[in-house]
Amino acid sequence: MPPAAAEPLTPERILATTEEVLRRFGPTKATVVDVARALGVSHGSVYRHFPSKAALREAVTDRWLARSVVMLEEIASAPTGSAPSKLEAWLEALFEAKRHKAGDDPELFATYTVLLAENSGVVDAHLSELIDQLGRIIAEGVAAGSLSAEDVPAAARAVFDATGRFHDPQYAADWLSPTIITEFEAVTALVIRGLRA
Amino acid sequence: MPPAAAEPLTPERILATTEEVLRRFGPTKATVVDVARALGVSHGSVYRHFPSKAALREAVTDRWLARSVVMLEEIASAPTGSAPSKLEAWLEALFEAKRHKAGDDPELFATYTVLLAENSGVVDAHLSELIDQLGRIIAEGVAAGSLSAEDVPAAARAVFDATGRFHDPQYAADWLSPTIITEFEAVTALVIRGLRA
Repeated sequence: MPPAAAEPLTPERILATTEEVLRRFGPTKATVVDVARALGVSHGSVYRHFPSKAALREAVTDRWLARSVVMLEEIASAPTGSAPSKLEAWLEALFEAKRHKAGDDPELFATYTVLLAENSGVVDAHLSELIDQLGRIIAEGVAAGSLSAEDVPAAARAVFDATGRFHDPQYAADWLSPTIITEFEAVTALVIRGLRA
Repeated sequence: MPPAAAEPLTPERILATTEEVLRRFGPTKATVVDVARALGVSHGSVYRHFPSKAALREAVTDRWLARSVVMLEEIASAPTGSAPSKLEAWLEALFEAKRHKAGDDPELFATYTVLLAENSGVVDAHLSELIDQLGRIIAEGVAAGSLSAEDVPAAARAVFDATGRFHDPQYAADWLSPTIITEFEAVTALVIRGLRA
């Protein structure tokens, strides 16, 4: 990315460049000065938007996690489709998104694994948002009579926990296994069957 | 443990002492010489039973993993009890065993986490044995009409995967959470419900 100081310096431009810098230098070496240099601005200009290196790393982590949430939200809030099939589609889309993140750009994925460890607040908020989407799908199914759950938030949490092998980045190495899709389908079927009314 | 060279040098004595040495020195520093010294024998005597440091580490890992298998096997092969309640008891016993290993002796647990990573063959055999026990419980339930599974080994694997958060040592830190028991119960109930005929 060539320096282009003429464009307005938006938070989004800073974050996109930070991601590039992290990919290039790795999370331990990348500095705010590297980000400013790549943008062709002073590091003071970057600090006007993000008051510290920690704030910048937190924001870039948040942005990375938020990317998959939008697409999952579309599935969760789709006006058509039964709750069990939405649930299946949602779990598939989550696994798909994670596998792509890990497989297409392993360096960036490794970088984010480091950032996730240092920004547990951002991660917790992200996980809550995902479990909340699951809860809305389950509540819809309970209302329609296709699913059954006494405690919807607890059921959503249980579905999320039970499918952890297919979204927790700790398992990224397993996602390359030739049998992983079959295993994902077996767990998904088991979990959905466990929620059926 | 005081040196006691007069006792016969059995593989079991060597392994028990190796565990002590690993606990004391940690997995990177412990040597076969340390084990021999603690036993009051020459390292040649140890090598007569375990031809290399790698073989000794593998055997001690295997022994550590095997300890929980015996108790789980008792549950799996109990002549009484319905399959769903056996399944629940088995999952509870597995979680209980893992939590105790992690909580009662965190240093030894950390040591074994290192050994597990270097002895993947031993770990894979252990996991297969556990999944095989689950499969026998599920097959019993299918035969009795209390559980339903088209492909019993696949269902056993799915149950094991779905409950990973409660037995995979990667999650040991989560086991200290005040809500972990509730979360375990929710996942277990969901999974058993998913298998009910």
